[in-house]
Amino acid sequence: MAFTYLSNYPLEEARELFLRALGEAGLKPRVERVPTSEADGRITAEAVYARICAPHYNACAMDGIALKASQTYGASETRPVTLPENSFKWVNTGDPLPDDCDCVVMVEDVIETEQGVQLFGAATPWQHVRQIGEDIAAGDMVVPSFTELSPSALGALLASGVMEVPVIRKPIVGIIPTGNELVAPSSNPKPGDIIEFNSTIFSGMMQDWGCESKVYPVVSDKSEEIIIWLKTAIAECDLVLLNAGSSAGQKDFSVEAIQTVGSVVLHGVAIKPGKPTILGMTTVGEQVIPLIGLPGYPVSGILVLEQLIKPVLGMMSGRQIRAPEFVEATISRRLVSSLKYLEFIRARLGKVGGRIVAVPLNRGAGVVSSFVKADGIIHVPQNVEGYEAGEKARVELMRPMKEIEQTLVITGSHDPLIDEVIDIMRRTWSDSFVASSHVGSMGGIMAVKRGEAHLGGVHLLDEASGEYNRAYIRKFFPEGGVVLMRCVQRTQGLMVAAGNPLGVEGIADLPRLRYVNRQKGSGTRVLIDYLLKQQGIDPSAILNYDREEMTHTAVAAAVAAGSADAGMGILSAARIYGLGFIPVCQEEYDLLISESALPMEPVRRLITILRSDEFAARLEKLGGYMLDQPGEIIQWN
Amino acid sequence: MAFTYLSNYPLEEARELFLRALGEAGLKPRVERVPTSEADGRITAEAVYARICAPHYNACAMDGIALKASQTYGASETRPVTLPENSFKWVNTGDPLPDDCDCVVMVEDVIETEQGVQLFGAATPWQHVRQIGEDIAAGDMVVPSFTELSPSALGALLASGVMEVPVIRKPIVGIIPTGNELVAPSSNPKPGDIIEFNSTIFSGMMQDWGCESKVYPVVSDKSEEIIIWLKTAIAECDLVLLNAGSSAGQKDFSVEAIQTVGSVVLHGVAIKPGKPTILGMTTVGEQVIPLIGLPGYPVSGILVLEQLIKPVLGMMSGRQIRAPEFVEATISRRLVSSLKYLEFIRARLGKVGGRIVAVPLNRGAGVVSSFVKADGIIHVPQNVEGYEAGEKARVELMRPMKEIEQTLVITGSHDPLIDEVIDIMRRTWSDSFVASSHVGSMGGIMAVKRGEAHLGGVHLLDEASGEYNRAYIRKFFPEGGVVLMRCVQRTQGLMVAAGNPLGVEGIADLPRLRYVNRQKGSGTRVLIDYLLKQQGIDPSAILNYDREEMTHTAVAAAVAAGSADAGMGILSAARIYGLGFIPVCQEEYDLLISESALPMEPVRRLITILRSDEFAARLEKLGGYMLDQPGEIIQWN
Repeated sequence: MAFTYLSNYPLEEARELFLRALGEAGLKPRVERVPTSEADGRITAEAVYARICAPHYNACAMDGIALKASQTYGASETRPVTLPENSFKWVNTGDPLPDDCDCVVMVEDVIETEQGVQLFGAATPWQHVRQIGEDIAAGDMVVPSFTELSPSALGALLASGVMEVPVIRKPIVGIIPTGNELVAPSSNPKPGDIIEFNSTIFSGMMQDWGCESKVYPVVSDKSEEIIIWLKTAIAECDLVLLNAGSSAGQKDFSVEAIQTVGSVVLHGVAIKPGKPTILGMTTVGEQVIPLIGLPGYPVSGILVLEQLIKPVLGMMSGRQIRAPEFVEATISRRLVSSLKYLEFIRARLGKVGGRIVAVPLNRGAGVVSSFVKADGIIHVPQNVEGYEAGEKARVELMRPMKEIEQTLVITGSHDPLIDEVIDIMRRTWSDSFVASSHVGSMGGIMAVKRGEAHLGGVHLLDEASGEYNRAYIRKFFPEGGVVLMRCVQRTQGLMVAAGNPLGVEGIADLPRLRYVNRQKGSGTRVLIDYLLKQQGIDPSAILNYDREEMTHTAVAAAVAAGSADAGMGILSAARIYGLGFIPVCQEEYDLLISESALPMEPVRRLITILRSDEFAARLEKLGGYMLDQPGEIIQWN
Repeated sequence: MAFTYLSNYPLEEARELFLRALGEAGLKPRVERVPTSEADGRITAEAVYARICAPHYNACAMDGIALKASQTYGASETRPVTLPENSFKWVNTGDPLPDDCDCVVMVEDVIETEQGVQLFGAATPWQHVRQIGEDIAAGDMVVPSFTELSPSALGALLASGVMEVPVIRKPIVGIIPTGNELVAPSSNPKPGDIIEFNSTIFSGMMQDWGCESKVYPVVSDKSEEIIIWLKTAIAECDLVLLNAGSSAGQKDFSVEAIQTVGSVVLHGVAIKPGKPTILGMTTVGEQVIPLIGLPGYPVSGILVLEQLIKPVLGMMSGRQIRAPEFVEATISRRLVSSLKYLEFIRARLGKVGGRIVAVPLNRGAGVVSSFVKADGIIHVPQNVEGYEAGEKARVELMRPMKEIEQTLVITGSHDPLIDEVIDIMRRTWSDSFVASSHVGSMGGIMAVKRGEAHLGGVHLLDEASGEYNRAYIRKFFPEGGVVLMRCVQRTQGLMVAAGNPLGVEGIADLPRLRYVNRQKGSGTRVLIDYLLKQQGIDPSAILNYDREEMTHTAVAAAVAAGSADAGMGILSAARIYGLGFIPVCQEEYDLLISESALPMEPVRRLITILRSDEFAARLEKLGGYMLDQPGEIIQWN
């Protein structure tokens, strides 16, 4: 094997190298002819010329009479010209202009008499005639090469007699998933099963990029099997994606398979995620077929396709690859990155207080939801160690800037009601966009303070006063600039297995249980710390008290999965998992809103929703909430 | 009949009125469930929640050993901890974390000994474990309502056990073409046949807007037949387009048909083109079905769909209708418009000399090619009489501003070689955009002078000197600012019917023929005027000398169609139509280029092409050209 270790090509260099290699090998678009009426959105392979004129005959453009203009010369209001019956012809709109006529006079201007017709004005040659070729002349180029056909272009082609157009054949992309643990998507997988959803993602991306996709069955981690399927895909497709096994470990057979059926151009790119990428190719007759080894994690695969394979598909499909749009954004928190790689970090973007703020999302390569939430991708260049909070960085946009500017940024404590608000908002106003992140109550306070969020949910108990939220707001915003808005009262309690098999009665039982906690700074963590202190229980006596989750539902999931016996959370989360729930106390979950955001349209929409019956009905369904004038401002600071 | 005349609702008012009427009648999206793997690009009808966690089990994220972190406490470089064989488990990446373990130690950090394994550092709980629900917790809202599903969203849904999603059913739009003269597209229609291409245009637009379309056979202009097909379409579709017959004339049956099967909300909108529009509806059970009468000309139909029907389809499809983008552009020539209508005028846009210039295109409602060429649509408000040349107007963009800014604007004399240059340019650089208009040589000089074009083709004979172009440039650009670039020498001659049946030998024969001329200001017109003067022939002695066409091919088309016996033009145009050609003289066709445009990338590309073998080969194929150092600057002014 020629490649036993990964190289570390800078991204640009890898892209250039691969495109050049493919070009030199003779990669080019394939051509097919399709009926014009079915060519919407296709790319012309050659210039297309009109076969007939449009209009294809001299057509009367009005109902009236056709004649020679010279017959009317001298006619006026006072000296009408009279034309005998056989010296003109009655015509309707769309009729061919009769021979020896050169104009049409509208029926409204024709007076019928016994001697024939009278005209009270002179006509000019070619008036009310749509002349042959007026729109398009036969032989004119209607559409040049490599141009996407719009519906009107199809109309113009049909009007000019072009019944069939030479277009670029959509590249067929073969996708071969490999891996022993892969199972088809299912709603009740066994532990250890890896759900194979990558091919659905990649297939969708290929279709969005104007290709066809062909997904092969899952192939197990055996070199000879992978080679057999690779050969099949080469025979049937124009480009093949092998996913995964693209690294250089013992169970990574992609590079060997690609070398067996073709050649490897390079293996290993200095990007993160996505380093273990293989760029190769083979030829069948004159046809060059790029062969790509993609890393297994979905996030890695998506990024490699976007950054390296999209230009190759552009070359094959004739589609112009629009350069990505970038924006300068303020990074909300410190980001450490390696000097060895160009690193891509998904981020939420929002315009808060006049500047664009990027909030980095979970970097895990398996965290596919990060792509659903992301508005952009922070590019941390290869020679940069990262960014301090507040520094500016280049962010590639994943959504139009206009939407990002309209986006309401909610950062704070997690409660499912936030998602319900988002849903009501989208159902009510189609131009509503919300970015919400769960970082706990303290995280929300800091985000609003740093100008990274318009608002956030908070439920922080002040141990001294026993009061919720107000004291914190006074403490963290001594100079004001925020308001506190009433949202809900909700029940906090211990979530335990369904039927409460361990007989948990309250906080006092925790030292004998495996606990799952919330992260420091979350209101629920403050609450449990306070309750333990009140009852004189040492947190270190509780097993796994340091196991931290970011949301109520993640805590509930851990209890439901049996990896923990109890966790503090809200009733609605326990209900979702059908868990037992031991109520402990009521707390106030309010919204902290930046004063400058208050007049914004999205915030006003939010307040409208908080006060709506629809919101009350959704909370009723979730359970564990009490409403008392939601949407009311309870503290100006 | 309730509606015998057309009303004149302002556009906004008509749109609001119709949307409100549909809303009150209960129009809403229809819902269907589709497999998640097939839902790319679809719109969610409801919020979608995770059914399982992702990951759905605590998964080892590394190859190594699984154990309890507490077993390793105190381990260090100098004091390793030794674990006996049965106190840990070997695991691979992706394996479920074994019971009673809470972390994984990488195989690289594990030293195997006879007593078991040695660890030289302490592990922390949950290290190298992808915890259950780390990405998505069951019960979390993965995607809210009315959201377009991206490929990554499909991945997230499959990862969270959602096998099927409720999405909005694509609205099915029925398209009924009506009209006795309509014939299916063909490359040899008879005079009087109207080629039915509107349904292809409308069908493509519907698909581009996320709908399905169903095109019915052409229905003749009989009220009872139209009603039968309308009823059929209502039973099968969610919205019906009736095209045409939407006006109030004797052969316009649409309004009567819609009143028979439903009701008319309004008939007649104050827009041009597009006034005779019918907005109606009917109901089938609980389902509201909008019924639209569209005007017959393609340009009118397209505009009515864009301006009035797109928001209705947005309501039905749940797709966000992005507000159109507008730009302020300088109008290149005087535009007169009626105070009675909001008028839409297609225009080419280009950035010349730092400002955006809009060049109005042919306003004809039948001129479908104007939509292919247009970069934008000038909106002339209802209360505005038009614009003077040089005034600014609001133009709706049809292409991204970025492309418009990169567009090379060529305005001048027509020659098919310009189209060939455009084609070569697109084949060579996928980010090349060219807007070219044929306005004759003098038109080109004026366009460059007024800063509306970067360059233009010119071939103007100076009667005094017998020299081409140079004298004109000196005269019209006394202060300089332009260069003249050599392009081609070409043969001008008389185009006559194939085989020259009338035995034309030269200019002297013209007085006995039906002539077709080029427009005043074109180089060819200057030439023929000059030649007639030279030979002492009075132009008024030539029949139809005042019939003017804008291009060589349009002149050739007139001769080919037999509506003229002769016309002056270039050999390549005659060849396209297989006409006879009597050479008269050689002329210089040069390019006049604004000096400020000379360093622009698109101009440099153009020069590269002029000097290329590919260009020479294409001219050879067209015929009638001689090349002598094309791309050389022959006059700086």
